[in-house]
Amino acid sequence: MRIGFIGLGNMGSAMAANLVTAGHEVTAYNRSPGRVAELAERGAAPASTVAAACGGDVVITMLADDAAVEGVTFGTDGEPGIVDSLPSGAIHVSSSTISVDLAERIGAAHAKAGQRFVSAPVFGRPEAAAAAALFVVAAGAEDAVRDLAPVFDAVGQRTFEVSPDPKVANLVKLSGNFLIASVIESLGEAMALVGKAGVDKQTYLDLLTSTLFAAPAYKTYGGLIARDEFEPAGFAAHLGLKDVRLVLEAGEELEVALPIASLLRDRFLTLLAGGGRDLDWSACGALAAWEAGGPRPGQG
Amino acid sequence: MRIGFIGLGNMGSAMAANLVTAGHEVTAYNRSPGRVAELAERGAAPASTVAAACGGDVVITMLADDAAVEGVTFGTDGEPGIVDSLPSGAIHVSSSTISVDLAERIGAAHAKAGQRFVSAPVFGRPEAAAAAALFVVAAGAEDAVRDLAPVFDAVGQRTFEVSPDPKVANLVKLSGNFLIASVIESLGEAMALVGKAGVDKQTYLDLLTSTLFAAPAYKTYGGLIARDEFEPAGFAAHLGLKDVRLVLEAGEELEVALPIASLLRDRFLTLLAGGGRDLDWSACGALAAWEAGGPRPGQG
Amino acid sequence: MRIGFIGLGNMGSAMAANLVTAGHEVTAYNRSPGRVAELAERGAAPASTVAAACGGDVVITMLADDAAVEGVTFGTDGEPGIVDSLPSGAIHVSSSTISVDLAERIGAAHAKAGQRFVSAPVFGRPEAAAAAALFVVAAGAEDAVRDLAPVFDAVGQRTFEVSPDPKVANLVKLSGNFLIASVIESLGEAMALVGKAGVDKQTYLDLLTSTLFAAPAYKTYGGLIARDEFEPAGFAAHLGLKDVRLVLEAGEELEVALPIASLLRDRFLTLLAGGGRDLDWSACGALAAWEAGGPRPGQG
Amino acid sequence: MRIGFIGLGNMGSAMAANLVTAGHEVTAYNRSPGRVAELAERGAAPASTVAAACGGDVVITMLADDAAVEGVTFGTDGEPGIVDSLPSGAIHVSSSTISVDLAERIGAAHAKAGQRFVSAPVFGRPEAAAAAALFVVAAGAEDAVRDLAPVFDAVGQRTFEVSPDPKVANLVKLSGNFLIASVIESLGEAMALVGKAGVDKQTYLDLLTSTLFAAPAYKTYGGLIARDEFEPAGFAAHLGLKDVRLVLEAGEELEVALPIASLLRDRFLTLLAGGGRDLDWSACGALAAWEAGGPRPGQG
Repeated sequence: MRIGFIGLGNMGSAMAANLVTAGHEVTAYNRSPGRVAELAERGAAPASTVAAACGGDVVITMLADDAAVEGVTFGTDGEPGIVDSLPSGAIHVSSSTISVDLAERIGAAHAKAGQRFVSAPVFGRPEAAAAAALFVVAAGAEDAVRDLAPVFDAVGQRTFEVSPDPKVANLVKLSGNFLIASVIESLGEAMALVGKAGVDKQTYLDLLTSTLFAAPAYKTYGGLIARDEFEPAGFAAHLGLKDVRLVLEAGEELEVALPIASLLRDRFLTLLAGGGRDLDWSACGALAAWEAGGPRPGQG
Repeated sequence: MRIGFIGLGNMGSAMAANLVTAGHEVTAYNRSPGRVAELAERGAAPASTVAAACGGDVVITMLADDAAVEGVTFGTDGEPGIVDSLPSGAIHVSSSTISVDLAERIGAAHAKAGQRFVSAPVFGRPEAAAAAALFVVAAGAEDAVRDLAPVFDAVGQRTFEVSPDPKVANLVKLSGNFLIASVIESLGEAMALVGKAGVDKQTYLDLLTSTLFAAPAYKTYGGLIARDEFEPAGFAAHLGLKDVRLVLEAGEELEVALPIASLLRDRFLTLLAGGGRDLDWSACGALAAWEAGGPRPGQG
Repeated sequence: MRIGFIGLGNMGSAMAANLVTAGHEVTAYNRSPGRVAELAERGAAPASTVAAACGGDVVITMLADDAAVEGVTFGTDGEPGIVDSLPSGAIHVSSSTISVDLAERIGAAHAKAGQRFVSAPVFGRPEAAAAAALFVVAAGAEDAVRDLAPVFDAVGQRTFEVSPDPKVANLVKLSGNFLIASVIESLGEAMALVGKAGVDKQTYLDLLTSTLFAAPAYKTYGGLIARDEFEPAGFAAHLGLKDVRLVLEAGEELEVALPIASLLRDRFLTLLAGGGRDLDWSACGALAAWEAGGPRPGQG
Repeated sequence: MRIGFIGLGNMGSAMAANLVTAGHEVTAYNRSPGRVAELAERGAAPASTVAAACGGDVVITMLADDAAVEGVTFGTDGEPGIVDSLPSGAIHVSSSTISVDLAERIGAAHAKAGQRFVSAPVFGRPEAAAAAALFVVAAGAEDAVRDLAPVFDAVGQRTFEVSPDPKVANLVKLSGNFLIASVIESLGEAMALVGKAGVDKQTYLDLLTSTLFAAPAYKTYGGLIARDEFEPAGFAAHLGLKDVRLVLEAGEELEVALPIASLLRDRFLTLLAGGGRDLDWSACGALAAWEAGGPRPGQG
């Protein structure tokens, strides 16, 4: 297929390279052009504007946040965006982690312009992206998702179709971050408890992750909490707060009370109020120990 | 070593059999004698009283609850208990899941009688017990734990020494149940949210357990919630409430606030108030969907 | 003083009438003109446009919600608003219960236009407004608040100056609604508890309000909960949710965790999910009894 | 009536004096005899043992806590208690704030001994006791409560009969303390919010207590929070925790989830963990400001 790819960060570069490898005709655009050159060496065509990446059957966006996706989709500073540039019937695939609300607005704009829109955020770290082993969460009109099968197969190991409504894929992605934050909080409470009883936190974590909780989320975040290692941030606390807020807003829209998400919101605000804005979000897991008499995270 | 074994349920029988296999001289006692006969065929000596199982270097208890362990330890109905029967210097190993408070009282009684006490609850299901693949959480005086190495090696794949204070092992065991209940609640909230947005709960769970949450706790309890399958109970709601209460009491003793545990307590009470006392404790994970407009768990 | 008054609902009419009585030169505007005529009989000059009410030293707005205040302030449907019409140096006094965010935007617009802005929401019911016995919460530049003393004295019994920043008065007003909702929830829990023990809820409330809780909020809302009387709504649940959301947003802006507000948000969502959108917000106080086995509010 | 009175603290002395004034024949006992002499001057007969105060129709206990009431009721150090001493058919009235559980055990013991038992805790401070203006919460068999009317009329301005089951009166009394603690927490959150926005806390409190919250609980505890005045304690934090725990236990017994009580329990633990055990319980109301970046209560 002829595919435009916009956003060549760690994740995007790897995904785009895998599309080239799979034989697709890829045209790549990035705000800072260095990454485009790298990809061009692997066989992609370089694009110097968003519009230039919108000439094919599909354009994929893989960008940092709502603002970036909004700018690229609707145009910015007088430059035309995807909605202005994509052929009728072509598909915009958004793989960025964006808000449910923005996904909804983008879908509406494409529908009005006679284009198709699929939300397809991914689960997996850069290494999984490089190995074409991502998990793709796809939502959109059935025909569009079906047409995208070769694309998803080139970047991921499995595709989960969750809804005909694109924004639902974003909700699913956000809910994953909510579940990670829940792990951080519950581990933080358990470690505050056994830690105050004199148990070594790393030994405790080894025990947990040898048995019932042998999962990446427990190993990664539990390790950071056990070692009080919150800098540099892999994912900053203020971004964690943002994702929890988006989950709560989705819950409000759907009329679903989410008591743990409410607790997490309060935790993140407490973390920020203590100067922890740029700490890793796992620093939330140190608040229970702080309340129990330990040092404030980021001030120890 | 010469080892008495008291309590031949699914877990206990398997552990005792492995001790025999490892070459220890095992004397076994059980309230109902059928299980003793089975074990005798494998080479253990049968005991018809608690006292008769207390003649060796070590006696291990593996019983259902505080009441059973209390009766066997301190004697009941005029029959002498372990404290009355164990030789000076010998070790009582409690592998049951009991309260921190009872562990403390048992430890004090043995100390007064010149005996030693080690708390060593285990993580793992009956199949792991049969395969001598349990994880042992051991707490007690260093010399006692060291002397028990051949015992723990015969029943488990790894021993975690967590404290010189026996009751701390019980706290660690209880904290594991708290973490499972946290998984139930957080999955329940996430599923209520995406479920109300139209996502199939089983597909969602497959996605989660393929990636960040590839852990037994998520697979087992998530599956029960996704299928609304709360009967028969693997572990009943009222027992879940009891464990959360014990964790909260330990937190009160140590002055550690545990907001998720507080939430779980409220959830279990709500579950019980709706008639869910004997449902599986994972039915807590259906309360978020109930609040969001779905059926009350156990009344659907 | 020469005062424009915009918004002649129950509260506004009474306030405007008191300004006339106190000798001020009042020009009154209302979207539906009937109320203007009534006030004209008492001596006010009628205005048929927003602009016509903006010729004096002061213009006061007393409207239902953010949308109404926004429309009147910035103009709507091509009609000029207060910002377009007020003389330089004149003061816009907003007495409506609006969001902190809107107050901030209005203040900025007036500053840019060389006008002054004071937020002055009031506490008190229509009877208090009629008796010129309101409590005024004023925030804005010191000179502006001082110049308004004759205005506030004409409508209220006491003025509380809370900040030089207008939006802070709106935060104070919203926090009052948060405190009322807290009363509803705590009374709801206490009544669920003693009610399940067989105590008559009205007797219980009589006891509370005879002693430590002899306050209007307890009498009014406690009575509604005791009688399960949630229709017709004095203040609808969805408006209660809105105010709690605004308080939470203010807390997020200021980095203040508000655990009871978080709980209230979840309660309101649960109420709405059960069909209680248009019930009185005190129906939140029936949720604890519902969880404890009673009927769902609005479905009893 | 012939009335024994046991426990002559500030509250008890005043109540006993009013019984004398009303013409009852009062025999008074106190552990330290000074207070007995004072009362004897007003016309009461002195008793030097518990048993000596148990010869009449009624004996009233007004003591500090469960331990004191338990000792006096069941006897202690070989001295006979009320159950051993009271004539058949006579009534023990417990006006102390005791646990639901102890009230139940006392009631059972009296029933077995052919005596009657009424729980009648009171609302009101020592000044109200002196003025015979207490509010009496009475629970017990209807005939017993009726027989006690002259007693209650002598000490209080109004009696609320809440249940034929004595322990329910204790639950009602405890629920009052829960509601006060809820006021402390909600005011603490609201003050943290407006305080961080620059509003003077005392001005804010004046506003609240002039209007919707013109109640003693708001004035008293709000004032302590506004002034950060937590020493000396009127009612210590660890006693506040005890009462919240008793309310939660009652809720567990009745299967009623109490989310604000759960939050309060966590708050009290956090307060104690920071060294606040002996601060006034209103110091809980300073935790929200602490989380928002302010000083830890008791360490400022």
